[in-house]
Amino acid sequence: MQNNRYKMTLCYDGTNYAGWQIQKGEKTIQESVEKAMETVLREKTSLVGSGRTDSGVHALKQVAHFSTKTAISDLAKLTYCLNGLLAKDIRILSIEKVLSTFHARYSVKKKSYHYHLTLCPYQKPFEKLYSYHVLGSIDLDLIEKALLHFIGTKDFTSFTNVRSSAKKFTKTLFSLCLNKKADGIIIEFIGNGFLYKMVRNIVGTLLDVGQKKILLEDIPKIFAAKDRKKAGKSAPAHGLFLFDVEYE
Amino acid sequence: MQNNRYKMTLCYDGTNYAGWQIQKGEKTIQESVEKAMETVLREKTSLVGSGRTDSGVHALKQVAHFSTKTAISDLAKLTYCLNGLLAKDIRILSIEKVLSTFHARYSVKKKSYHYHLTLCPYQKPFEKLYSYHVLGSIDLDLIEKALLHFIGTKDFTSFTNVRSSAKKFTKTLFSLCLNKKADGIIIEFIGNGFLYKMVRNIVGTLLDVGQKKILLEDIPKIFAAKDRKKAGKSAPAHGLFLFDVEYE
Repeated sequence: MQNNRYKMTLCYDGTNYAGWQIQKGEKTIQESVEKAMETVLREKTSLVGSGRTDSGVHALKQVAHFSTKTAISDLAKLTYCLNGLLAKDIRILSIEKVLSTFHARYSVKKKSYHYHLTLCPYQKPFEKLYSYHVLGSIDLDLIEKALLHFIGTKDFTSFTNVRSSAKKFTKTLFSLCLNKKADGIIIEFIGNGFLYKMVRNIVGTLLDVGQKKILLEDIPKIFAAKDRKKAGKSAPAHGLFLFDVEYE
Repeated sequence: MQNNRYKMTLCYDGTNYAGWQIQKGEKTIQESVEKAMETVLREKTSLVGSGRTDSGVHALKQVAHFSTKTAISDLAKLTYCLNGLLAKDIRILSIEKVLSTFHARYSVKKKSYHYHLTLCPYQKPFEKLYSYHVLGSIDLDLIEKALLHFIGTKDFTSFTNVRSSAKKFTKTLFSLCLNKKADGIIIEFIGNGFLYKMVRNIVGTLLDVGQKKILLEDIPKIFAAKDRKKAGKSAPAHGLFLFDVEYE
């Protein structure tokens, strides 16, 4: 029985990719890594990611698993060779052998996403691809109060997009906090899983709260409506980082 | 007498520019800003920078001056309009009125440059345009000892490139230190002025010391030779940031 299963940890700059998932005619992270693996391993290998990231979304830590017909003897060498073949906007951080029961998506216990926002009048050029620049006044106290409405086990239907294939819309946010920096904030999410566009839709809604377009008391009503149209618009992809994926 | 002189502070990502200085057929920072100024001010205006930065070199803070025929009534509005016209990789941070005796180059008291080096096996994709990735073992203690040889008032002929138009090769480095980070170092220079490619040539030489290609006792000999060929090769542009320019 085949038990050559491996866990790969990688990071990427999503700017020039149409997201994680393979799509015909598009350059994706999954396809780029699978192609490099085929070159090195001389066999077609499928990567199963912890989840998709959308076009333009970055990952400081993404996890995927794969299985091979023959065991890989030198994982450090494989890592080295893959990084040699890959463009510099994707880096394999480690590859380790795992039990055949390990599944990059189903075995996830916690995932963290960070959303970066620049709130000063002029954004440093170095951050233009990695932080969403919001002009105008934002009330951070209101956003901090709003965060509390999202923490816990809730039906997030109003915060996922229609094309979501999820059948279960209940997710648990263990923690949601606002980290202040010199020129902006990072909104940090930790949850047991995330629906399609959920982080970006929540960020968009929080920004509407901070700009007084949505009132604090409207948030429970938005949850209750189970209607995407009631929430704020989606914040852009380039401010979003998959920050961590944790397993048991 | 014309006394409408202004000091502009700006930052830029040098990745997509052939440096600060206007050059025929090349996209430069100076030309981009002058073009935007002509559009807003409806007069041709020349910018005098604190110094040139080379192709691919970044600036967290660059300073330039300019003069206009008619006084500018609203400097905040001018800043806002220029940022609206400029690509996001150049940001004007402020424009202020100064005495007609202010000169962005001649009035400089101190300039600081930071050179960013990634020393871990895999560089984060987000840093690939902003830090030079060096593989292999580097002895940081040796580099720290080597730094001491560069501090003070010295003839830096061996550390400037031939095409340098400087007539005086003596410069003073007030401070030169190594700042350790999680995945690399920043080499921080503060001096009264810098010759063409001087920072990058010193960094290249320091790396040769860290890799034991140049011995500590060779450094005084390199200074004495007044010969660029005796020093290490130039470190690449993308690790270098003009960090600060100070005036009285």
